Amino acid sequence: MKTRVGILGYGNLGRGVECAVSKTSDMELVAVFTRRDPESVKIVSDGVKVDNVANIEEYKDKIDVLIICGGSATDLPKQTPVYAKMFNVIDSFDTHARIPEHFANVDAAAKEGGHIGIISVGWDPGMFSLQRAYANAILPNGKDYTFWGRGVSQGHSDAIRRIPGVKDAKQYTVPVPAALEKVRNGENPELTTREKHTRECYVVLEDGADAEAVRQAIVTMPNYFADYDTTVNFISEEELKANHSGIPHGGQVIRTGSTGWNNENKHVIEYSLKLDSNPEFTSSVLIAYARAAVKLSAEGQTGCKTVFDIAPKYLMDISEADMRAHLL
Amino acid sequence: MKTRVGILGYGNLGRGVECAVSKTSDMELVAVFTRRDPESVKIVSDGVKVDNVANIEEYKDKIDVLIICGGSATDLPKQTPVYAKMFNVIDSFDTHARIPEHFANVDAAAKEGGHIGIISVGWDPGMFSLQRAYANAILPNGKDYTFWGRGVSQGHSDAIRRIPGVKDAKQYTVPVPAALEKVRNGENPELTTREKHTRECYVVLEDGADAEAVRQAIVTMPNYFADYDTTVNFISEEELKANHSGIPHGGQVIRTGSTGWNNENKHVIEYSLKLDSNPEFTSSVLIAYARAAVKLSAEGQTGCKTVFDIAPKYLMDISEADMRAHLL
Repeated sequence: MKTRVGILGYGNLGRGVECAVSKTSDMELVAVFTRRDPESVKIVSDGVKVDNVANIEEYKDKIDVLIICGGSATDLPKQTPVYAKMFNVIDSFDTHARIPEHFANVDAAAKEGGHIGIISVGWDPGMFSLQRAYANAILPNGKDYTFWGRGVSQGHSDAIRRIPGVKDAKQYTVPVPAALEKVRNGENPELTTREKHTRECYVVLEDGADAEAVRQAIVTMPNYFADYDTTVNFISEEELKANHSGIPHGGQVIRTGSTGWNNENKHVIEYSLKLDSNPEFTSSVLIAYARAAVKLSAEGQTGCKTVFDIAPKYLMDISEADMRAHLL
Repeated sequence: MKTRVGILGYGNLGRGVECAVSKTSDMELVAVFTRRDPESVKIVSDGVKVDNVANIEEYKDKIDVLIICGGSATDLPKQTPVYAKMFNVIDSFDTHARIPEHFANVDAAAKEGGHIGIISVGWDPGMFSLQRAYANAILPNGKDYTFWGRGVSQGHSDAIRRIPGVKDAKQYTVPVPAALEKVRNGENPELTTREKHTRECYVVLEDGADAEAVRQAIVTMPNYFADYDTTVNFISEEELKANHSGIPHGGQVIRTGSTGWNNENKHVIEYSLKLDSNPEFTSSVLIAYARAAVKLSAEGQTGCKTVFDIAPKYLMDISEADMRAHLL
């Protein structure tokens, strides 16, 4: 029998999950839940129900795992604990500083409901976190570096769009090549924020807007841009559409460390992602962990889990013997 | 209380484990076991017993985990099942084709003894296997590539040393840059053995040996060199010592795949290792999994495990809450 999947929220991430589920042989999509009028939400899959989230409890016995595709700022802190009482759930909560609090809330709810809740699944947090954990376990005497990009930061693009005079914008986070090289060479540099990443902005102005004022507003914006070397490029709406409509991302997790009685031997562990579509890749990670949630639940486990708690064997739909024979 | 570690076999790997254990705060080395005369084995650590392996059963209650540092060809297939009856054990068995058989033998023995046996721990198999598993779970529609090097192959160096007229030799396995680039670009190439790696040999001849005959013997050697583009460099003994006495290694696991309804979005996942000392890095992985074996055993689990069966949280000596707060 296939694992029955529900999706809550039909933005970029929900759409990615829909597509990824359709390509598995062990999962089927049962329903997409939305806060909007279900009639207004057109999904790709045939024969799959779109329902208002208000009716979600009716699906308690029709869904094995609910993939929650909301935002981390306001949606997930509320949604994941609520739905962990009814379903096995997965989310991609990515506000690093608030993970302990979110974990505690989801843990209590999932245990109350007798379900599994896996939080902070994706690539960072998620795959990058795994790499940090494995690399720290292996090379305790070392130093971690995480670089993001070249890729689109949705938060920074939104921040630019809120500036008066800006019609549309896209912001790329870009690692500084010299910093990357120092790290890869095992030089263990201390890097400031400015030394690690630059920010590249592509901005479409409203008619008559003051370009220099917009540029100043961007490069001096606290938290978002002030601590970075930021380049602002003004382009036409057509150019933005033609060259900047994708949502690529990626990055590197690097740990450099040493072994030997006198720390004489250096080692570099590097994990790198180059992604054409950030939401589709995140979706792919989400459904691998959705598979794990159902297996853990079938074993009688409950409560909140993260990628650190889950053995790799739970993520695949091939047997453990096949994994040993073909992947080990 | 610290985890009490035993080491069986005191070659490069055993020495690496000794050093790595000394740098942890949660483990202590109790004894090194050898098939040689214990008096002849000088270890680095003070106050640690060197004993003949014939006496190992006396340590049944004095050791929490035994790290078996033998060779895969003849030692480990015999040793790991025998000692899994007495101890929690870890090995680095790396004959990929014989893993299913080794797993079955260790599983039966470990269950009989009520212990945990973790096999095939290191970087390949080991960390590279983990990367293959995670990447396959996330990108089911894709293709795997593993490159090794630039690094010293002990087996190939030994094969050269057996040729008449050769006094000493070192062989490096080197990935072909053009092949790596094609893979990283997502071109999904089909690569022959010759297209993936070249072999670089540094050979010291005996006095009066025929260099051209040695070169021919190397480059035509079946299995080891015949299928590769092999370069043979004749150098002096001093040069070999000065420039080729290390045991560096490394490599890349790359998976390229696509997502989207029409597979329109490409993704590249790459894991790369650059290691100054192959045995010391392998040792570092071994002790992380030794820690895991003791924790799994304390939970009442028994039987054979691989890296696929073990959640990352078991590998570290920090709390799960600290992992979530600092590494997620």
